[in-house]
Amino acid sequence: MKYYIGIDLGTTSTKAVLFDDKAKIVSTVNKPYELYRTEPDMAEEDPNEIFEALIAALSELVRSAKEKSGVEKAEIAAVSFSSAMHSLIALDESWNPLTRVITWADTRAVKFTEQLKETGKGQEIYERTGTPIHPMAPLSKLLWLRSEKSEIFTKAKHYLGIKEYIFHRLFGVNRMDISIASGTGLFNIFDLKWDQEVLDYVGVSVAQLPEPVDTYTIERGMKSEFAKITGLAEDTAFVYGAGDGPLSNLGVGAIQTGVAAITIGTSGAIRTVAKQPVIDKKGRTFTYALDKEHWVIGGPVNNGGDVFRWAKNNLFDAEKATAELLGIDEYDLLTAIAATVPAGSDGLLFHPYLGGERAPIWDANARGSFFGLTHNHTRAHMVRAVLEGIIFNLFMVSMALSEVVGDLKEIKATGGFARSTLWRQIAADIFEAPITVPSDLESGALAAMVVAKKALGEIDSIEQISEFLGESESYQPYPETFSNYRELAPIFVRLSRQLQTEYRQIADYQRSHTAKK
Amino acid sequence: MKYYIGIDLGTTSTKAVLFDDKAKIVSTVNKPYELYRTEPDMAEEDPNEIFEALIAALSELVRSAKEKSGVEKAEIAAVSFSSAMHSLIALDESWNPLTRVITWADTRAVKFTEQLKETGKGQEIYERTGTPIHPMAPLSKLLWLRSEKSEIFTKAKHYLGIKEYIFHRLFGVNRMDISIASGTGLFNIFDLKWDQEVLDYVGVSVAQLPEPVDTYTIERGMKSEFAKITGLAEDTAFVYGAGDGPLSNLGVGAIQTGVAAITIGTSGAIRTVAKQPVIDKKGRTFTYALDKEHWVIGGPVNNGGDVFRWAKNNLFDAEKATAELLGIDEYDLLTAIAATVPAGSDGLLFHPYLGGERAPIWDANARGSFFGLTHNHTRAHMVRAVLEGIIFNLFMVSMALSEVVGDLKEIKATGGFARSTLWRQIAADIFEAPITVPSDLESGALAAMVVAKKALGEIDSIEQISEFLGESESYQPYPETFSNYRELAPIFVRLSRQLQTEYRQIADYQRSHTAKK
Repeated sequence: MKYYIGIDLGTTSTKAVLFDDKAKIVSTVNKPYELYRTEPDMAEEDPNEIFEALIAALSELVRSAKEKSGVEKAEIAAVSFSSAMHSLIALDESWNPLTRVITWADTRAVKFTEQLKETGKGQEIYERTGTPIHPMAPLSKLLWLRSEKSEIFTKAKHYLGIKEYIFHRLFGVNRMDISIASGTGLFNIFDLKWDQEVLDYVGVSVAQLPEPVDTYTIERGMKSEFAKITGLAEDTAFVYGAGDGPLSNLGVGAIQTGVAAITIGTSGAIRTVAKQPVIDKKGRTFTYALDKEHWVIGGPVNNGGDVFRWAKNNLFDAEKATAELLGIDEYDLLTAIAATVPAGSDGLLFHPYLGGERAPIWDANARGSFFGLTHNHTRAHMVRAVLEGIIFNLFMVSMALSEVVGDLKEIKATGGFARSTLWRQIAADIFEAPITVPSDLESGALAAMVVAKKALGEIDSIEQISEFLGESESYQPYPETFSNYRELAPIFVRLSRQLQTEYRQIADYQRSHTAKK
Repeated sequence: MKYYIGIDLGTTSTKAVLFDDKAKIVSTVNKPYELYRTEPDMAEEDPNEIFEALIAALSELVRSAKEKSGVEKAEIAAVSFSSAMHSLIALDESWNPLTRVITWADTRAVKFTEQLKETGKGQEIYERTGTPIHPMAPLSKLLWLRSEKSEIFTKAKHYLGIKEYIFHRLFGVNRMDISIASGTGLFNIFDLKWDQEVLDYVGVSVAQLPEPVDTYTIERGMKSEFAKITGLAEDTAFVYGAGDGPLSNLGVGAIQTGVAAITIGTSGAIRTVAKQPVIDKKGRTFTYALDKEHWVIGGPVNNGGDVFRWAKNNLFDAEKATAELLGIDEYDLLTAIAATVPAGSDGLLFHPYLGGERAPIWDANARGSFFGLTHNHTRAHMVRAVLEGIIFNLFMVSMALSEVVGDLKEIKATGGFARSTLWRQIAADIFEAPITVPSDLESGALAAMVVAKKALGEIDSIEQISEFLGESESYQPYPETFSNYRELAPIFVRLSRQLQTEYRQIADYQRSHTAKK
């Protein structure tokens, strides 16, 4: 029996899925690791912990494959990767890490992106690299290192991300797929080369960066010590794969024109696919490679389920005990409370920027707000407004997306929020488009597996993923409710511009007073 | 023994206080009546219910005076009035009411004030009448009647307010003191006459309005039937007195330059006194007569304790039972929770406009908002932000006041909020001025009594009220906390301008969707 392993290198854990050759899930393992947040705005991982997690996950799945089909007959055709984007590790000349993995969630570089944005320089760089100017990007992290950690910057001979670090440990190579490269802010997405002008600006040379390679590139011949530990054959194909965002679109089958994928987990995103890179003159959307023929255009948002959790813990802390007594999930209780209020929350609006925001406003200083409060509004209105605000914000991103890639006619929804009927309906109504929810599957790992099949020449086109997708449920917009949202959306949008004028000031106040404590 | 009765004609009750000639309170009665709110934005009283309440209150106090000092020796030297301002009753030629008492709280005239404000006409009228253009004013109510209730407008031969209605019932006269007149929006505060231009604009003649008289004017010779019922002598002096706002400044001894009075009950106000009418070129403050030599300049706010009650009922509904179990007042529990959070609520701002707002923004469409929310904010922050927001808003009014009348150096605080140590301290810190809280007394009725003494020639000047005022407590601003507010106040002020751009739209949405239900 032939098996495939799809790896999903995430921010707080690595998930590994063993598929049989019909793309049926045989076994899944999840290995968590720490996200270090010991300084304000820091978000780091230990590269060694992640490498160990990967090795442990591979070992378990190889053992599982052998148990399933007998030691002799278990062939792992490929290991293929979906990886968190935007990570940066600095290494010295002997390839020893000088930093931990500085992840996308680390925002210590905010000062440097503000400078880039204030001069026109930022937009210029974005238009060649496709990566919005934001502290998440390695570009920003390098500027931060140069200024704030100059001893590391001086010493560093190599810069790479977490997946390249793993490939280097396993194979001694120094290569990065074009998908991960397209999220660094250093890579020219039209030439498919490191952008010399940006490198000059940052003060880094091409020699310090990995060689860009295709998504379907295969490495074979892993170091024997790791082959031994994992039980994999030394010549097992390791396929580079791509970034988790682009592969997530592939994984839910949203790679045709006019189809968008929405994900809301802790954070969220909306993405669609074009045949070539597409730049937004207003700098609101990213354009990342899936492969050379598929470019994923979209916007990531910081504020998704995390904001709903804030509402649960702070507005509905008193209901925790009630949910426990009822023996139901607190989120389900909140959703039931929200459902008692009409669509549009009787004119209460919520801008969900509790954690700053990326798309559509790209403002790390953004903050949350309720607007439109009257004596008639209750906590039930507030929680519904929170749910609606999260979707309104994604809708704003979709408007920017439509401007650059054309109309979005269908939406595939995934992530925790897609489990709630109320959220699905709110999304269908706000987007005024059908929302399709694929049945639960490991879409990132599945997409990585399909990339492996293409790399191995087993399929001609990644579009063939449709053969492996399961059933899905569909939700239609209701005219009686979407008309409310149609009236409120312009107010939400205009207000987000007005509120923006004071984000910097309130964030400065909050930072300086938190520091005092 | 000689007694005085001070009457406080309020929006939901009439309070009557019996004073002895040392201004000591002998007895107090309170007679509630209905505030009719059966249509959106309506707020009406029944004139007859108020008249009956007054007669009942007088009867009780006269009986109480007689019991106290023996029937023969009880002399009621005067009955004197403090009255809610801005009320309007239309009557036919036989003096039968065609409307109920349309009170200041009635906002059905909002459409007509918007028109006045959009053309320059509103500011022009304000600059002659001292009454801000707002649905509260009889001017606006007349425009509303003319357009929306034309059968009443056509039939009406007389227009007056609740106090004039009472004097008419008691004495058959048709007179209005200049203080109440100065709150109608129809009275020229420089000529002390009805403003012919405004009357022409509204379509009302001088003959339809009462004769303006001085604050100290006395009527004697009440109809014998009412003398019989109340037990008052027919020749008892009835002194017109003044509006409740102006008299409230007198009642707390805030009639010198640089001293302001803050009241926060259900709604709130800040007022100071000048020797002549003072007009604000931006139309933010009122200027109402106390008498010809004392003009009360200030701003009324809709959103005071009412907003705190909203927070209690909606954000802290779950704590109601806890307060009951503890056997403490819910508001005290909330204040204790608010006190756990640092001054400035860690950068959370609340604009308290749940009920539209009068001063300082004069926008009936204004709505409430929270701004600056982060993952660190809890309900404790929210309730402190509510308290702070109410005071920040009054502080904005005080800034407008300072612009027109000069610096405010001391603040006298009254009303429900003045009972809370936390609120007092927040006010001292936000205003950066000492807050003096007079010991509990019936300041409106006391002021009415002092007006009566002047009318009777027993004192030379109302400044002599200082002899009758009790002890007071004083609160100083703390530098450690007022610096936080000093950073936040400019953000609060700028933001209130930004938010204002969408009040009309959200209020329109709310009105049309409430109507649908």
